[in-house]
Amino acid sequence: MGNYGEVDHKAINTIRTLAVDATFAANSGHPGAPMGMAPVAHVLFNKFMTFNPKNPSWINRDRFVLSNGHGCMLQYALIHLFGYEVSIDDLKKFRQIDSITPGHPEAHDTPGIEVTTGPLGQGFSNAVGLAIAQAHTAGTFNKPGFDLINNHTYTFFGDGCAMEGVASEAASMAGHLQLGNLIAIYDDNHISIDGDTKCAFTEDVTKRFEAYGWHTEWVKDGDNDLEGIEAAIKKCKEVKDKPSMIRLTTTIGFGSKLQGTGGVHGNPLKEDDIKQVKEKFGFDPNQTFVVPQEVYDMYHKHASEGAAAEQEWDQLLEKYCGEHKDLGADLKRRLTGKLPEGWQNKLPVYKPTDKAIASRKLSESVLEAIYEAVPELMSGSADLTGSNNTRWKAAVDFQPPSTGIGEWSGRYMRFGVREHAMGAAMNGMAAYGTVIPAGGTFLNFVSYAAGAVRLSALSHQRVIWVATHDSIGLGEDGPTHQPIETLAHFRALPNCMVWRPADGNETSAAYYIALTSTQTPSIIALTRQNLPQLEGSTIGNAIKGGYTAIENKEAQITLVSTGSEVSICYEAVKYLKDNHGVTARVVSMPCVEVFDTQSKEYRMSVIPDGIPALSVEVMSTLGWEKYSHEQFGLNRFGASGPYKEVYKKFEFTPEGISKRAVATIEFYKDVKPLRSPLNRAFVQLI
Amino acid sequence: MGNYGEVDHKAINTIRTLAVDATFAANSGHPGAPMGMAPVAHVLFNKFMTFNPKNPSWINRDRFVLSNGHGCMLQYALIHLFGYEVSIDDLKKFRQIDSITPGHPEAHDTPGIEVTTGPLGQGFSNAVGLAIAQAHTAGTFNKPGFDLINNHTYTFFGDGCAMEGVASEAASMAGHLQLGNLIAIYDDNHISIDGDTKCAFTEDVTKRFEAYGWHTEWVKDGDNDLEGIEAAIKKCKEVKDKPSMIRLTTTIGFGSKLQGTGGVHGNPLKEDDIKQVKEKFGFDPNQTFVVPQEVYDMYHKHASEGAAAEQEWDQLLEKYCGEHKDLGADLKRRLTGKLPEGWQNKLPVYKPTDKAIASRKLSESVLEAIYEAVPELMSGSADLTGSNNTRWKAAVDFQPPSTGIGEWSGRYMRFGVREHAMGAAMNGMAAYGTVIPAGGTFLNFVSYAAGAVRLSALSHQRVIWVATHDSIGLGEDGPTHQPIETLAHFRALPNCMVWRPADGNETSAAYYIALTSTQTPSIIALTRQNLPQLEGSTIGNAIKGGYTAIENKEAQITLVSTGSEVSICYEAVKYLKDNHGVTARVVSMPCVEVFDTQSKEYRMSVIPDGIPALSVEVMSTLGWEKYSHEQFGLNRFGASGPYKEVYKKFEFTPEGISKRAVATIEFYKDVKPLRSPLNRAFVQLI
Repeated sequence: MGNYGEVDHKAINTIRTLAVDATFAANSGHPGAPMGMAPVAHVLFNKFMTFNPKNPSWINRDRFVLSNGHGCMLQYALIHLFGYEVSIDDLKKFRQIDSITPGHPEAHDTPGIEVTTGPLGQGFSNAVGLAIAQAHTAGTFNKPGFDLINNHTYTFFGDGCAMEGVASEAASMAGHLQLGNLIAIYDDNHISIDGDTKCAFTEDVTKRFEAYGWHTEWVKDGDNDLEGIEAAIKKCKEVKDKPSMIRLTTTIGFGSKLQGTGGVHGNPLKEDDIKQVKEKFGFDPNQTFVVPQEVYDMYHKHASEGAAAEQEWDQLLEKYCGEHKDLGADLKRRLTGKLPEGWQNKLPVYKPTDKAIASRKLSESVLEAIYEAVPELMSGSADLTGSNNTRWKAAVDFQPPSTGIGEWSGRYMRFGVREHAMGAAMNGMAAYGTVIPAGGTFLNFVSYAAGAVRLSALSHQRVIWVATHDSIGLGEDGPTHQPIETLAHFRALPNCMVWRPADGNETSAAYYIALTSTQTPSIIALTRQNLPQLEGSTIGNAIKGGYTAIENKEAQITLVSTGSEVSICYEAVKYLKDNHGVTARVVSMPCVEVFDTQSKEYRMSVIPDGIPALSVEVMSTLGWEKYSHEQFGLNRFGASGPYKEVYKKFEFTPEGISKRAVATIEFYKDVKPLRSPLNRAFVQLI
Repeated sequence: MGNYGEVDHKAINTIRTLAVDATFAANSGHPGAPMGMAPVAHVLFNKFMTFNPKNPSWINRDRFVLSNGHGCMLQYALIHLFGYEVSIDDLKKFRQIDSITPGHPEAHDTPGIEVTTGPLGQGFSNAVGLAIAQAHTAGTFNKPGFDLINNHTYTFFGDGCAMEGVASEAASMAGHLQLGNLIAIYDDNHISIDGDTKCAFTEDVTKRFEAYGWHTEWVKDGDNDLEGIEAAIKKCKEVKDKPSMIRLTTTIGFGSKLQGTGGVHGNPLKEDDIKQVKEKFGFDPNQTFVVPQEVYDMYHKHASEGAAAEQEWDQLLEKYCGEHKDLGADLKRRLTGKLPEGWQNKLPVYKPTDKAIASRKLSESVLEAIYEAVPELMSGSADLTGSNNTRWKAAVDFQPPSTGIGEWSGRYMRFGVREHAMGAAMNGMAAYGTVIPAGGTFLNFVSYAAGAVRLSALSHQRVIWVATHDSIGLGEDGPTHQPIETLAHFRALPNCMVWRPADGNETSAAYYIALTSTQTPSIIALTRQNLPQLEGSTIGNAIKGGYTAIENKEAQITLVSTGSEVSICYEAVKYLKDNHGVTARVVSMPCVEVFDTQSKEYRMSVIPDGIPALSVEVMSTLGWEKYSHEQFGLNRFGASGPYKEVYKKFEFTPEGISKRAVATIEFYKDVKPLRSPLNRAFVQLI
């Protein structure tokens, strides 16, 4: 297959020298991985991948994920060379403020970047999610004669990703799911930041992937053997019933005087080293950011083939729309990101006379009510289906048909006990563009996936966490499972909505906003215990994030509460009146992030000047000072026992709330003016 | 080896029926795993493990960790039967408020429980840490003729733990470290909460462990083959240079009508099922919590053998102390949990005229200064040694000697890129009782280990996180690496200290408190960028958690700040005076949790009534309302660029702070009385 010539090597060395120049100009960054992986990148992008740089969002494009995101100059060089909207000047601004070439690849900002990577293990797991979404979308839409969705997902990962647990979880999941459309290339360069991997990482990675059910290949000379690389990828593409992993042995920083050492991993090359690298590769040592025209030509040619492929595909889609009208319309609609018209009319609505139900069950009712109207919704759980109530009755599992327990078109994910990979895979699924993933676990274990949730927020992915068992209200499982810090954690995370609905209408509202917020992930915290349907609660109120649930113009105090504590506050209002002659009003605040986006006028009407506010939430009080003068919460670990007794132990009762309300009124009676906590001296930067 | 008789089976069935009775009484809990694993538990505890229930803290006891902690009735039954201070009444109070038999095992509360488990994957990884500490302690203290420390660590784990990434990381680490003293028994029962594992978990677990470098065994009939179980454990004990994993195929809920199904995993048995189970096992179906006397007798006999073994060991230790005086004294001291006298005199002290240094380097200077004085300190990093500065120059790696790159007695851990396993292993290391672990990563990636950090806090482990690159001040790596929510997250976690020192003296103070707090983990957030040594900063001040760094009785505002922003506040004081004629005072608050423990009088002297306070910290403002009237922070993601430019972009400059200080003064000028935010209406429950 000796079909590689001078221009191929020139292209490879162009990628290498661009990485060298950009990291030198930035005086930071990672030249080693781009220099080592330029050969495989060249072969993969130019020989195998189909994409159109003029339309980076073409749905059937092949996906590429650089899981070792620190090597992003590799990717920036490629997307520039192929003609995405990333100029040579953008490369020169590598790692500079407000550039589109930040220190690690960010999907939201840079064309051609599929997902945000850098935090190790995430990209690999995103790739699994992309492959899941592809397989599901193909299973849903492809018809005889219409192989509409058939792209591959490729990912590069290094030793760091291979060591991360999230990638292990994702690899096990991908093996189980037989994702034949996924090809992962392992940069086996034996170097991590601490030096030779022999100091910490001596396992047999290939054997491990085989244990997961992957097909594996080994290219022993990843620095030079372009034909071998091509053959390995080709072989992997032929394996349809397993994901594939290619162990690619490379030399990190290939060409540098420090090649093969940790010295070239995370530091720019020295000036004299750069000179010799360029000379070695036939480049002018005194010029920077050089791209030979024939390299542009070759890559642009490939790009235009990609554009032609898209055109052809567009025609196929039109033909498909003629023969499969409903499906075609559905696919086209999904690609706009908009939900089907009228879907929201399916959301359950409750009256105060309806019976008390646990909000995890209310959540199940939402899914049951909307799953037909919102076909892009995929639900799932990290092995807590019966507890999270994430599965609608008629759901079919997403499984390889050969297992006999599901279909590719199935919409229910069995993620296994793999919370972190679930989160990271959901990021990939959402990034694919045709599905909205919702995943269940206990709220406490969303923390296992903190790294993935953070990237959902940073990369603007519409991902939904169905986070049940949301407090000490879970009872007997005890402190190991009772969240205290979790809501504060995710409320502190930018661009992440934390919902804690108090009843049925608020649960419907949470789903409404979660599903219609195309740029923001949501965590919906749900109870194990039953909650009454509240007077004053409506979907219309709750979608504002916070609202006055019990108004009283004579009120001496505002009780601000969420979730399961709102109904106790209702009882406290009566208790306060009966026992203390105190008049109170109640605010329900299912989502502070959404409340924060309302007008100041509205917000001030909810938590007004003149009377003190007391927050009531049965977990860390951290952050509630923003919405209240005083806070009643739980700044310690909980207890194992029947939930009513646990609530009583910590005084989350009408009496316990009332006691603190009275103390709060007393304490603030002499303060003039008594401003609402929402009334602030200056506006926060956003 | 047919050396099992009627009493053995009676013992096994006693464990099973106790689990059945306790879960039925509690009306919750997990009978399935105890019923399935009773045989292996019996063989392991009675034939292999050496321990003394009268002294659960004997250092050379064999350790047992139930990683599938939901099956804790297995463990509670065992510790009761062997005579730990857990009575049959305690078993009857399973999962009740304030009992010592909570829903998942908690090390801090129950004798005989080594580590707190339940969150899946943690216990397995703790066991790796326990085995590390054992190997290190043996390497440090054992001498010819004195095989002083030679215990084994055993752990049971199920499919859930096997799926969790943290356990994968830990298993890879244990394989690399050749931990021959570690034996893990995998409850291969094919059932998880979602039902048959075939729906999500079809990998070859044995092959995977072999890929990690483990020795493996398979017992095909774990329900009945006691001899086979014994033989497998024996074989594993003979393998000294590898950890061992025994795949034990069992029937979950053995004996129940629902045995082998998910129905018996997380729900008590029904009454009629309980009756037939008891009849099947030869127990009176109408009696509960029955323990045949011969079962007590057999187990108490084993317990007294353990007590005798400890006595013998005590004599060996005394003899050792005669021949190896210094080492013997050191070991005895370590067992008290107290640090060597005078160690704190080694802590570096700085003057304001000393040069500006990054606090990650200041942290390195602390380690360099104290490592000889504090021999139980083990340091390490998740593959960021050169960035975290966690390694003192003369450090020797903890490695199997056969690798040629370290020693068992080495005190530097190469954790690999495995943050979560590092955290969980550190919990095990701390629980062992002879070492204090400190582990480095970027602050942002402590979040990967959130599950482990939570258990450090809940189980009172002295674990130290060296969390460098603590803010947007890390610069070019960009938003994927810049913490925003991380400090809020861990500040909301009970019993966890979050330190963010502003200079050298504060860094020394952070280590002083971290090392002397035997019941609390610490996260020390450290900068990449240089920080000046501050006037007013002393170790004595900083160990109070917060103190007045610049006092001024005429001050119109208090600036409350941490870490790298304190010195900018110092500049802002001058800027405010020069440009606005405003007088300001500065409070440095390196650790709010420690500050909170000071007297109200002291705290009110630091953040007094009468003038407003403005907090300044370059990340989420969440929680700062507790210490300030207004907050200047960053409630959005950061930016990739040189750090000074990033600071400027977000206005963290003397001008930016001053602008907000002036607005704050203006806003609060009419409020009377203007109370300190520390002045509260009622005291929080703790």
